[in-house]
Amino acid sequence: MEAGLSARNPRIQAAARLHRSSERDATGLTLLEGPNLVEEAKQAGIAFVELFSLDESDPDAVRISEAALERLSSTQTPQSPVAVIAIPRHRLRAERSVLVAWEISDPGNLGTMIRTAAAFGLDVAVRGGADPWSPKSLRGGAGAHFHTSVVEIADLAEVEAVKVATVLEAGDSPSALPDGRLALLIGSEAHGLPPEAIASAPIRITIPMPGGTESLNAAAAAAILCYEISNRRTSQNG
Amino acid sequence: MEAGLSARNPRIQAAARLHRSSERDATGLTLLEGPNLVEEAKQAGIAFVELFSLDESDPDAVRISEAALERLSSTQTPQSPVAVIAIPRHRLRAERSVLVAWEISDPGNLGTMIRTAAAFGLDVAVRGGADPWSPKSLRGGAGAHFHTSVVEIADLAEVEAVKVATVLEAGDSPSALPDGRLALLIGSEAHGLPPEAIASAPIRITIPMPGGTESLNAAAAAAILCYEISNRRTSQNG
Repeated sequence: MEAGLSARNPRIQAAARLHRSSERDATGLTLLEGPNLVEEAKQAGIAFVELFSLDESDPDAVRISEAALERLSSTQTPQSPVAVIAIPRHRLRAERSVLVAWEISDPGNLGTMIRTAAAFGLDVAVRGGADPWSPKSLRGGAGAHFHTSVVEIADLAEVEAVKVATVLEAGDSPSALPDGRLALLIGSEAHGLPPEAIASAPIRITIPMPGGTESLNAAAAAAILCYEISNRRTSQNG
Repeated sequence: MEAGLSARNPRIQAAARLHRSSERDATGLTLLEGPNLVEEAKQAGIAFVELFSLDESDPDAVRISEAALERLSSTQTPQSPVAVIAIPRHRLRAERSVLVAWEISDPGNLGTMIRTAAAFGLDVAVRGGADPWSPKSLRGGAGAHFHTSVVEIADLAEVEAVKVATVLEAGDSPSALPDGRLALLIGSEAHGLPPEAIASAPIRITIPMPGGTESLNAAAAAAILCYEISNRRTSQNG
């Protein structure tokens, strides 16, 4: 009868350190928690550096204790298994439109935006803000990180597509989105896009909000405009 | 020199108990945290049962200690002021379309959906799941709870509008949304809508997702369809 690796085991401790972004940067590794994410990664052909499970019947996994699982988890109800993977090095694809997430600070929100982009066939460029490969962003993405390209950029010039800035007022209607490959810029929850980002974009779009409130959550705005970009392509090509 | 109410003060303890839904149910009260939400409530004419602040210069607030603020907060970085308010008793408005949030379990997601509905002029009916008046839902709503009607329902029959079920496949395109007052049903993150909800809806809509992934976050799907409902009205009346 084996109890599984304890929370103090060096392999568990090394994996748990991946909750820190500095450790993810230094190692190129991250953590996937729960059966859905681990299965999505497996389906996508991702190799597991470690695979830890409470379940002794899983032949591919190293058995761990409940305490070790809690140490590895970033959720209130820890889910087994937990995998350590190398962060994939994606490239933006030449033919795809791109969602540019600009200084999105909430990792769950960023993950949701990646999930939305993947559903509508857009790649994702992350320009500052939360780490798209953090366990929380991965959870928000629900596997989408393995179905679309997710890259970090330092400069908007790295995205070769017509820039579209999302602005709260005085932009064009979403129906004015042009044909072709677009880079949809969505700004931070608190501050929107900075002036330099807006200035770099030949197209500015405002989502009409007749309800009289000020704004949408950044991920909600991203969903509407990814949908419009996808619709536009469908209606023009289909 | 006054230190402000301590975390052990009975008024602070009574307010902190409002993090529990049973206590909110029993008292009809809830908590608002941070300057933005408190200001939104004030602008909307909401009366404060209590108003607690770190800032001694606020003449309307009772001064509290840092420890008391932490006790009242549900965030990692507690924000002053914190208000106790009575939960408004809203009614669905006869002329409005309604977003029906069905067993949405994440309070932040539910708050985001309320924010989205308010932006597009829809009321909100909550059918099971998270409490729309919890501090976390209120934070996700960013003040939208004070700009649209938010009601809890036990039965879909309480919503007198044409039901539209959001389904993952085999529904009509969003462009098929009819004119008139609609009740847009959005199901839980994990399970979608239950069969009885889908059966009750004469209209079923599927958001086309050419990216090849399975699904959208519930709040992202709600954003796209609230936008489509609002667009439809605008283009027909405007």
